[in-house]
Amino acid sequence: MTSPQNIKGMRDHLPPAMLLRQHILHTLTTVFERHGFEPLGTPILEYAETLEGKLGEDEKLIYRFEDHGGRRLALRYDQTVPLARVVAQYSGQLALPWRRYAIGPSYRGERPGRGRYREFYQADADIIGSSSPLADAEIITLLTESLTTLGFTDFTTLLNHRQIIGGIARVSGLDEAAAGDVYRAIDKLDKIGSDGVREELHERGVAPAAAERILTLVQLDGSPDAVLHELGTQLHGDERATAALANLRAIIAALDAMGVPPAYYRVAPRLARGLSYYTGLVFEAITAHWPAGSLLGGGRYDELVGMFAKNSVPTVGLAFGIDRLHDVMEELGLGPRATTTAAVYVTIFSTEQVAASLTLVQELRAAGINAITALDSSSGLGKQFKEADRKGLRYALVLGPDEVAQGVVSIRDMQDGAQHSVAQTDVAAALHQMLG
Amino acid sequence: MTSPQNIKGMRDHLPPAMLLRQHILHTLTTVFERHGFEPLGTPILEYAETLEGKLGEDEKLIYRFEDHGGRRLALRYDQTVPLARVVAQYSGQLALPWRRYAIGPSYRGERPGRGRYREFYQADADIIGSSSPLADAEIITLLTESLTTLGFTDFTTLLNHRQIIGGIARVSGLDEAAAGDVYRAIDKLDKIGSDGVREELHERGVAPAAAERILTLVQLDGSPDAVLHELGTQLHGDERATAALANLRAIIAALDAMGVPPAYYRVAPRLARGLSYYTGLVFEAITAHWPAGSLLGGGRYDELVGMFAKNSVPTVGLAFGIDRLHDVMEELGLGPRATTTAAVYVTIFSTEQVAASLTLVQELRAAGINAITALDSSSGLGKQFKEADRKGLRYALVLGPDEVAQGVVSIRDMQDGAQHSVAQTDVAAALHQMLG
Repeated sequence: MTSPQNIKGMRDHLPPAMLLRQHILHTLTTVFERHGFEPLGTPILEYAETLEGKLGEDEKLIYRFEDHGGRRLALRYDQTVPLARVVAQYSGQLALPWRRYAIGPSYRGERPGRGRYREFYQADADIIGSSSPLADAEIITLLTESLTTLGFTDFTTLLNHRQIIGGIARVSGLDEAAAGDVYRAIDKLDKIGSDGVREELHERGVAPAAAERILTLVQLDGSPDAVLHELGTQLHGDERATAALANLRAIIAALDAMGVPPAYYRVAPRLARGLSYYTGLVFEAITAHWPAGSLLGGGRYDELVGMFAKNSVPTVGLAFGIDRLHDVMEELGLGPRATTTAAVYVTIFSTEQVAASLTLVQELRAAGINAITALDSSSGLGKQFKEADRKGLRYALVLGPDEVAQGVVSIRDMQDGAQHSVAQTDVAAALHQMLG
Repeated sequence: MTSPQNIKGMRDHLPPAMLLRQHILHTLTTVFERHGFEPLGTPILEYAETLEGKLGEDEKLIYRFEDHGGRRLALRYDQTVPLARVVAQYSGQLALPWRRYAIGPSYRGERPGRGRYREFYQADADIIGSSSPLADAEIITLLTESLTTLGFTDFTTLLNHRQIIGGIARVSGLDEAAAGDVYRAIDKLDKIGSDGVREELHERGVAPAAAERILTLVQLDGSPDAVLHELGTQLHGDERATAALANLRAIIAALDAMGVPPAYYRVAPRLARGLSYYTGLVFEAITAHWPAGSLLGGGRYDELVGMFAKNSVPTVGLAFGIDRLHDVMEELGLGPRATTTAAVYVTIFSTEQVAASLTLVQELRAAGINAITALDSSSGLGKQFKEADRKGLRYALVLGPDEVAQGVVSIRDMQDGAQHSVAQTDVAAALHQMLG
């Protein structure tokens, strides 16, 4: 057969990449659990019917097939529809409000590109069953702590509210139907600039004065207080927008009480974020290091999670794109630099010394040091050092007849070739210190 | 629509189950990395062609479908074929011998049953590119440490070698073709007993004297030394069996040097273990607590991993069935008992006290305590205590105007309702102590 390949758009992760990936997932898990979020695991496959009728246009991207019993199955498209299914299916076992997180792959039959894969991992965190602004603030706090714990220092979370954009459209004289066009045009602001948006609004039949007003309002900038104050003045009289501004103020007050540094967020009335199912807060974290797009995003969606249940279930949440996070962290050099898991290589001096070396490696492991041995006891030390070096291990230990006679172990630093002896009883402690 | 369900044979894991699952995976990851195994991640989908022609009969269990470009894809059936693909595809980047582990789901269109699922998780650990008995011993040591670290005390690893069963068949006068029948009959020994196997051997045309000899030899029991000695006498003259015995002796000598307690393993000539692709050592860990089958198994398979490469790549490894491990640990009460991630619930006394409570919860989190707050500041303390209790949180904190005035926090033990005050500056330290 032709030489086998992975599927285009679905990546293999060799150990160095996996180590960074596991660091990201482990860090997010720790932060999520610190905030009391609970893990949920759902199968990667769902009945196709569960996913269908929720995605509009994008439904064509679902991977669908029939199983051995002729049932129509689908690979999950995201972790939100499975959450909605679980909330309906296990309602008796779930106490709302529920903080849940979920980490795993989803699948979309898209054209692969930079940072866009057909198999991609997401880490979702949602608070289900609460419409309190404290829940929204908790999600933004979680986002901030997740990014700072991962090592990001230079990012901003843009905050907006669906009814602020709605209000801007309304006070500019547009009806609800036209408002949708406005969102879509504004969504391209970063790509096509003010002039591009102006032109697009004109094409969609928005009068020049209205377009100017919209462009001015969505580009308001400054401290959250200043932007909210100006919006309050400009959207005065629009009830829903006024409520949205009060909601954002409550969220920001909670962020303040939780000590989230104001440098990490901004009110950005231009943030549209494909508003299809969001009903309140929307947000996106951006960084200058990734001009191509946001690091992650989310918002409040009060109708989606209840879609399989009888009642609406107000929910706010976020989804980290692990693949993008991975790519950015790799570029920025964040996270561990290790290319392998072991730090120490125990050589085997000769066939007679096998047992001594095996005993030694187990002592190191018992002391919490990740260590391997040579496997081929007949190959010489030179070849074994080469293997340790090729694998990126920091130290190689030698336990020959001389060392055994003296009760010591020779430690070779693979970076400079320096070698020194340590009493066998002290070798674990010495290595701990050398490894930091 | 009808109420949505998960697919039969593919499980949802609500938080209490996920917490045990994550404990298992985290423990295995730690032990694997302690032994220098490196993580590999491959997509859950492969080109169908990569999987086809390797499974015989079982190929019909593969989930197959066409993607949006008409390519034939398949959900992976195990993690071994993807490993073989990776070894061929990235040969330039992989230094052999390579210790790799992989954790993730695989898929089989089987009839679901107790401990058998259509989506199941495996944790594989293999040493690729070494035929040394030290590699075999390393895998058995890894197995033993994995199970003891998970809390198992009462298990035995049965060790055998393909050429021991082969030798038993040969010295009983059977040819290679008949030997296959013998393996399959012996494989049922636990299910159908000696009489059943005797009958089956007779039906397959094995002469009564040969059948008796086979039954005696495969049921040899005692210390590894005694069993190996007796087999050495009985299989004397069969070159391959003699080499196999020497190989098992070398593996056991290495286990001894690595301090693996002899109580944890046994030489069991009757262990057949679906010998289709194994070429040397085979093993299975069993426990009296799970009479239905083995906890995990593995062996040496020197031809499989090289199937996409030009040369054979000798490999030995194991695969933990995470779902079975999970079920057994749940039955035995092993692992953490926590049903949620948070330990502390911070109440909100009144709307005026929101900020104080939010500040407090962040202080606790910064001190490493998993904590949540009430989200509805208008509900009374009674209702909030109820929520903390329902969620299984151990302590609820109260920070009302009195507490604020006195600079204290009230800590309520949700198990007995006892409440006492602690200075605000000491609350994290006090909780650390109370939580152990």
